Amino acid sequence: MNAITTIGQKAVVLSSGGLDSSTVMAIAKDEGFKIYSLSFFYGQRHAIELDAAAKVADALGAQKHLVIHIDLGKIGGSALTDDIDVPKTRDEQEKPTKIPVTYVPARNTIFLAHALAWAEVIGSSDIFIGVNAIDYSGYPDCRAEYIEAFERMANLATRACVEGITFTKIRTPLIHMTKGQIIRKGIDLGVDYGLTHSCYDPSPEGLACGRCDSCILRKKGFAEAGVKDPIRYIS
Amino acid sequence: MNAITTIGQKAVVLSSGGLDSSTVMAIAKDEGFKIYSLSFFYGQRHAIELDAAAKVADALGAQKHLVIHIDLGKIGGSALTDDIDVPKTRDEQEKPTKIPVTYVPARNTIFLAHALAWAEVIGSSDIFIGVNAIDYSGYPDCRAEYIEAFERMANLATRACVEGITFTKIRTPLIHMTKGQIIRKGIDLGVDYGLTHSCYDPSPEGLACGRCDSCILRKKGFAEAGVKDPIRYIS
Repeated sequence: MNAITTIGQKAVVLSSGGLDSSTVMAIAKDEGFKIYSLSFFYGQRHAIELDAAAKVADALGAQKHLVIHIDLGKIGGSALTDDIDVPKTRDEQEKPTKIPVTYVPARNTIFLAHALAWAEVIGSSDIFIGVNAIDYSGYPDCRAEYIEAFERMANLATRACVEGITFTKIRTPLIHMTKGQIIRKGIDLGVDYGLTHSCYDPSPEGLACGRCDSCILRKKGFAEAGVKDPIRYIS
Repeated sequence: MNAITTIGQKAVVLSSGGLDSSTVMAIAKDEGFKIYSLSFFYGQRHAIELDAAAKVADALGAQKHLVIHIDLGKIGGSALTDDIDVPKTRDEQEKPTKIPVTYVPARNTIFLAHALAWAEVIGSSDIFIGVNAIDYSGYPDCRAEYIEAFERMANLATRACVEGITFTKIRTPLIHMTKGQIIRKGIDLGVDYGLTHSCYDPSPEGLACGRCDSCILRKKGFAEAGVKDPIRYIS
C-alpha cells in the first residue's frame, strides 16, 4: 500500500476497544487515513469494551466514533451474549479445530455489513478489521478466505461499487501477525494499551479475569513482545 | 428443489410485510418448511410494514416471528431512513440504470447477515429472500450475482458451515418473475394480499400513496395478474 495515495482519505475501522482493533486503528492512521471508528453494542454481557473503544478512538484522533446497537442477544447462540459460562481453560493448540462457545454467530459478517453501509455513506473505500489467523480463538469469520469472500460480495452490494465510484477493500493488516508482533507494532505507533480491554469476563470493577481465552492470548502476546501489560488483572 | 427433502426443516424467511416477501413465505411453507420469519426495525420512517409482517407471519403459520432493531438511521444515506423526500415519479425503464434515493446502503447485506446468524442458531440451512431482478427498483443488492456472492461468503462465515454440518442456501424464488407472476403465484398459495403493505410513503392512517416507486410496481403487478388489489390507496 502506497501511503501517498491514502493521505486524507477516509477509512472505517471496526473497533472493539481491544488490543487488535486498537493496533489496526493506529496502522490506518499511520497510512494517512482519516479514521471513522465503528463499535457495536450487541447485548454483550460486559459493555466495558465500549468505554475502551471510545477512549482509543479519542486517543488516536478519530474524526468520528459511532456506536451501533444490534440485537444479537435476541438471536442468541453465544457465551458472549447469553447466560452461558465463559470457559477458563484454553485449548493450547495454536489453531483450535473446534469452534468455542464464545463464538458469536455471523458476528463479523454483521459488523462488516454495517461498516460497508457507513463506508458507502461517508465515501470511504477502505474498511479495516483486526482479524488474525495466528493467535486467535478459532472463529471461522477470522480467516483470510472468509474476508476475501466478503470483499467480493461487498463489491456487488453497494451503489458506489456498482456505479464504479469505488472498489471496497477489506483491510486486515494483522492477519498473519502473532500477538507479540501486533503489540510491538502498536507500541512503535504509540498505542496506549492501558486504554484497551480484552477480557471476556471482567470483574464488576472492570478488572480482567486473566483466565479466559482472550486474557490468555493477551498475556502471551505481551510476554512474547517482552513488554509489560499496562492493564490490571484479578489473577 | 425436491419438497420431500425439506418437509419439517426450518427456513429463515426475511419479511418486510410486503407483497414479495409474503409470497416468498408462502412458497417456503408450500415446500414443507417450518417458517422462522425475520423482520427489521431499522429507523424506517413508517413502521406500518412491521404490523403487516406480523400479520402475514401469523396468517401463514410461522413458528416464530422475530423483529430485530438495527441502527441504519444512525448511518443515514437513504430517503427511507432520512428526512429526504420519497420521489413520486418512477423512471419507466424496466431496469433503471441509476440507483434511486430510496436505496438503503448495504441493507440486504445487513438483513442477510442477521438471517445467517439466526439460521445458524436454530439449525436452518435455507434463507429465503424476496429479491427480484425484473420489476425492481434498481438496487444493486437485489441481483443474482450479489446473492451468489453472499451465499459463497456465508459458507465460509459460520461454525455450522465450516464444521460441515450444513451448507447455507440463499433462496430467491422470485428472482426471475414479474410482479404479475408473483401475485398469481401468491394467490394460488392462498396469500391474503390485504394484509401486506408496500408503500414507501403512507398516510398517517396507513393508506398507500399510490404514487411512489413501490406503489407503482404493486399496481402494475395487480393489473398484469388481472386481480383487484385488496388494499386501499389515497390516490
